Order: sequence, then structure tokens, then C-alpha cells
Amino acid sequence: MAPTGLCFEDLRIGQGAELSRVVTEADIRAFAAVSGDDNPLHLDAVFAAETHFKAPIAHGILTASYISALIGTKLPGAGAVYVSQTLQFLRPVKAGDEVRARVEVKALDAAKGRVTLACACSVRGKTVLDGEAVAFAPRRL
Amino acid sequence: MAPTGLCFEDLRIGQGAELSRVVTEADIRAFAAVSGDDNPLHLDAVFAAETHFKAPIAHGILTASYISALIGTKLPGAGAVYVSQTLQFLRPVKAGDEVRARVEVKALDAAKGRVTLACACSVRGKTVLDGEAVAFAPRRL
Repeated sequence: MAPTGLCFEDLRIGQGAELSRVVTEADIRAFAAVSGDDNPLHLDAVFAAETHFKAPIAHGILTASYISALIGTKLPGAGAVYVSQTLQFLRPVKAGDEVRARVEVKALDAAKGRVTLACACSVRGKTVLDGEAVAFAPRRL
Repeated sequence: MAPTGLCFEDLRIGQGAELSRVVTEADIRAFAAVSGDDNPLHLDAVFAAETHFKAPIAHGILTASYISALIGTKLPGAGAVYVSQTLQFLRPVKAGDEVRARVEVKALDAAKGRVTLACACSVRGKTVLDGEAVAFAPRRL
């Protein structure tokens, strides 16, 4: 049987989902490889030591990908289709940091079958990324 | 010697950069692993066949990561720091598609050392993603 997520009819304002993930150096290298983003700020400890971050930081879009994971696996989940995303990168994320990602339903557009989600990622209680997503959720068959 | 990108002083309105990348099934699987986004829409041909896409599609944030690569490696390049990004996912991208990503300088904020870039990705001449990025570019030493 095919995996199934939530349908549009299952969604309610205020509904939320979250996940936590520890970012590893291997994750940062894997993201650099798959994206082609080998900015030394993310990969080169000597280069990063010269910046005000003092150590390599994770790609912002790697952190953003945990929002994608929440939308694609939990809320709405399997079958959800991304329509748009805004992202503000507020603080650096470094290897070893545990990122807590959270999405919450802010609006529902029944005519279009779309859900608007407030999105945030935090590390040790401080917001590192926030934004807003719109996704299409399948209708109940 | 540390790799170096463009400094804020090197940037001009209208300046652009681009790259092309063929998305592979292996890229989609690697992105699913690093993000945790295993939505079957991206990974499961049987599930995807039941959707209006008919076949698995790449994660929108994977396509967006090519924008990150342009900013982090070309414009401004090494040392650039992401401030914000908006993304509209307009059309699906599938394994085998060649994505052409392009960024162009739209505004420069000398007081903050920030550049605003129009961003777009296209496949076979049709826009699949567009948005706007703001990045910090290092000052010339």
C-alpha cells in the first residue's frame, strides 16, 4: 500500500509538527556535493576561522531542508507539493548543533487545496531560521 | 592561500552568474538522505505515478540549492553569507532534467554590505523556480 500523509480535509489552523536533527560534518559535505555549493565558509576550517563565525557553518539551505522534510513527511506529509517558501537565515548553525524544526498551520485555502505554514528552526532555544511555506495537500479520495 | 570570491565593492547592478546541472536519481536520493525528506513523491515511482506528475519529482529545495551554489561559489562567491531567500516552485523537475540556474544583482546596500539577487532556475527554457535572495558580501580588506 502506498504511504499516505494528511489530506487537506485533515488540516486545522494551529496544527503543528516538529523534528530534531543533529547536523554533522558529513551532512555538510554531502549537501555541498549534491548542491555544488562548496563555499569554503562551509567546508574549510582555516578559511572560516578568518570570518566572524570562527568555524565552518552549515549551508542555510541544508537547515531549510529540514522544513522540507517536515512538510514532505509529517504536515501534510506524503504527497504534499511545495508551492513557495520564504527563508530568513538569522543565526549560524555549526556541525554538532541539534536543529529543532517546527511548522504550524497558519491558513487554509479550501478553493486551492493549499496550506500556509509558519516555519522555524532553532538551536539551543534560539531561532536560526524562520519563514513561511505554502504547500498543496492532496484531497481525500 | 584561501579561496576568495567577489567583494561588495566588485558588485554592480545587472551583474549575473549561472550554472547548469543535470539532476540525477542519485542526487534525489542523496538529498532525501541528508534532509530526511523521504516524501514518496520524490522517491517512489509507483506512488508518483498516481499523482498528476506521473513520475517522481526532485525536491524543490534541491533545485533551490543550485541558487545557494551560485551565491556561494560565483556571485558573490567564497565567503558570501546568506541573509534571506524567497522561492516559488513553478514547475516540476525530474531526474534527467538539466537545470539552468541564474542569479542577477538587483540592488546593493552599501551601508549593510548586502546584495539583492533575482534568482531563477529553468528546464528546457521554462522557469521551474524563481525568487529573490539577499546575501552579505565581504568588504575588500
